[in-house]
Amino acid sequence: MTELTGPVQVIGAGLVGTSIALALSRSGVKCVLTDDNPDNLRTAAGLGAGRPATADDRPQVVVVAVPPDHLGAVIRGALEATAAYGAVVTDVGSVKTGPLAEVSDAPGVERYVGGHPMAGSERSGPLAASAALFDGRPWAVTPHEAAGPAAVDLVEDLVRRCGAVPVRLSPVEHDAAVARTSHVPHLLASLAAGRLAGAPGAHLTLSGQGVRDVTRVAAGDPVLYGQIVSANADQVLALLTEVRDRLDDVIAAVGDRDRPALEALLAEGVAGTRAIPGKHGGPARPTTSIFVSIPDSPGALARLFADAEASGVNIEDLRIDHDPGRATGLLELLVDEERAEHLLTSLEAKEWVTHR
Amino acid sequence: MTELTGPVQVIGAGLVGTSIALALSRSGVKCVLTDDNPDNLRTAAGLGAGRPATADDRPQVVVVAVPPDHLGAVIRGALEATAAYGAVVTDVGSVKTGPLAEVSDAPGVERYVGGHPMAGSERSGPLAASAALFDGRPWAVTPHEAAGPAAVDLVEDLVRRCGAVPVRLSPVEHDAAVARTSHVPHLLASLAAGRLAGAPGAHLTLSGQGVRDVTRVAAGDPVLYGQIVSANADQVLALLTEVRDRLDDVIAAVGDRDRPALEALLAEGVAGTRAIPGKHGGPARPTTSIFVSIPDSPGALARLFADAEASGVNIEDLRIDHDPGRATGLLELLVDEERAEHLLTSLEAKEWVTHR
Repeated sequence: MTELTGPVQVIGAGLVGTSIALALSRSGVKCVLTDDNPDNLRTAAGLGAGRPATADDRPQVVVVAVPPDHLGAVIRGALEATAAYGAVVTDVGSVKTGPLAEVSDAPGVERYVGGHPMAGSERSGPLAASAALFDGRPWAVTPHEAAGPAAVDLVEDLVRRCGAVPVRLSPVEHDAAVARTSHVPHLLASLAAGRLAGAPGAHLTLSGQGVRDVTRVAAGDPVLYGQIVSANADQVLALLTEVRDRLDDVIAAVGDRDRPALEALLAEGVAGTRAIPGKHGGPARPTTSIFVSIPDSPGALARLFADAEASGVNIEDLRIDHDPGRATGLLELLVDEERAEHLLTSLEAKEWVTHR
Repeated sequence: MTELTGPVQVIGAGLVGTSIALALSRSGVKCVLTDDNPDNLRTAAGLGAGRPATADDRPQVVVVAVPPDHLGAVIRGALEATAAYGAVVTDVGSVKTGPLAEVSDAPGVERYVGGHPMAGSERSGPLAASAALFDGRPWAVTPHEAAGPAAVDLVEDLVRRCGAVPVRLSPVEHDAAVARTSHVPHLLASLAAGRLAGAPGAHLTLSGQGVRDVTRVAAGDPVLYGQIVSANADQVLALLTEVRDRLDDVIAAVGDRDRPALEALLAEGVAGTRAIPGKHGGPARPTTSIFVSIPDSPGALARLFADAEASGVNIEDLRIDHDPGRATGLLELLVDEERAEHLLTSLEAKEWVTHR
């Protein structure tokens, strides 16, 4: 029972549910779909995600992909409906302990294994779905203590068949992890962004790439993030209390003109940025930024990347810096420290204006 | 006297000072250089930034580009040294009211007009300098009340000759603006990043693009940012107090499970992200993200941009999403909402794996 052969029933044909069905269909696993909204069901089926489920279907795995508030009830219902033939049930909710508490006394709970794909989109609904949504992304698999080992294996196989990388964590660990890496950063971005609302326009003219990066996630839907944060309230509160203590330390250090204390607090932030795993999960290789001026027109980027390709240097990361007031952009390229000089020389030879 | 004809004396041949001299030299304005460090002076001169200044030079403008702690004394010295022929003196410090307070009783202070180019680099020193550093960037020009109008015009002309866009603000307004758009976002990013230091490695595996963006600026040098924040202590404290009040509101809303209050706080953040001026200073045009899977090798980006060019759709912004665990990347392209469908179709026709 540890290998996924199908069929898989997906309950909830929104962005994530439909994407899972598309990804599994791509890998040859048959899917059937359930959704209260007949339009969603028709759209998802039309995209090739699978046909609507019937009472005769006997899914090997049920994937519950409904909004946070309904997870517990739908997981419980799926365990009950599949009791006769023992299907494994998983879900994709962004918080894990709450739904688990709702189903922990359900008959067959050993067949439930929680999950959380770290992928999404600013858009929602089946029309935004894609078989490639999970490619290369982490997907938390969060077995509770009573979960059957074969059920866990099967869910991890489903994750891999979707193109994602399973990361096994307990439900409590998962919720602590997303509070730290997602919910609290989101709230702090929102606090920084909130200070910009209503500021004089001339002041905002001085906004650079830094404040744009810090505040970008704060543009997300307040209703959705309100649900997510509320569902993880305890873990979020524990960290927010820590943040408030540290903020008080910052205020004291700035107010007292205590430079060493302020530097120590800033150094803690530097250490935090270095703790984030590097690209491809490995340790971060030393990289250097180089900057290239580019005209803001179709073609310039293509020419630049063709020239960069000719140099043989791999671009690790890139960003376009926004330039108010004129139609040029500044492209920042992150490359291996030891290859930066070679790339600079190559681009300059092709008359690009570069600097580090 | 309102047109810049030169020569310009730059005091402090570090990254910013040398870049100013290179940019002015590029536009045909002669520069002379002063620095306590003979190595810096030799390097800057060798790059073509100008020759070392002598006692016989009579600069039209003196640009003071020394570390924050020395600005007041050096500006005062420059006003005194050029009193006989009335040179205009400007500086490039990132905080404006402090140095002004130090020179406001100096003879000739009407010849001083503060400035602050919104450009820099993670590197420092003359070797990192570039004539293109200021191209298209905002450069705050911050005249005090006693500043002569001709002196202000001349500094704005210098800013334009460096390729930058002058933004006129009073010194107090400037410091309030950078507290809001730079110093406080930096401190909040640092607080978010500080929570990652020492977290279990498995938890950090769930880090996505969001937390990377929020915390990126927190990687900056703690000593430098400690200086900058300290120099703007009053403005920073006023905003940090506001942030603490709002953080208390967030903690109360999460603790009380008060969804509407939490949503209102998050909505304030959304409004803030919309207040940041769009690219090229204009109002933000509606854009849509599309995502393309790319193999992580030289050549893939060049091919992709060549194909995007062929579609005729302009790329407004882009970023590479980091995928742990496998050697593919996900490229996010921001394009005009109305052109997204066309670009998707064009890329899919060339067999790129795309989704929205």
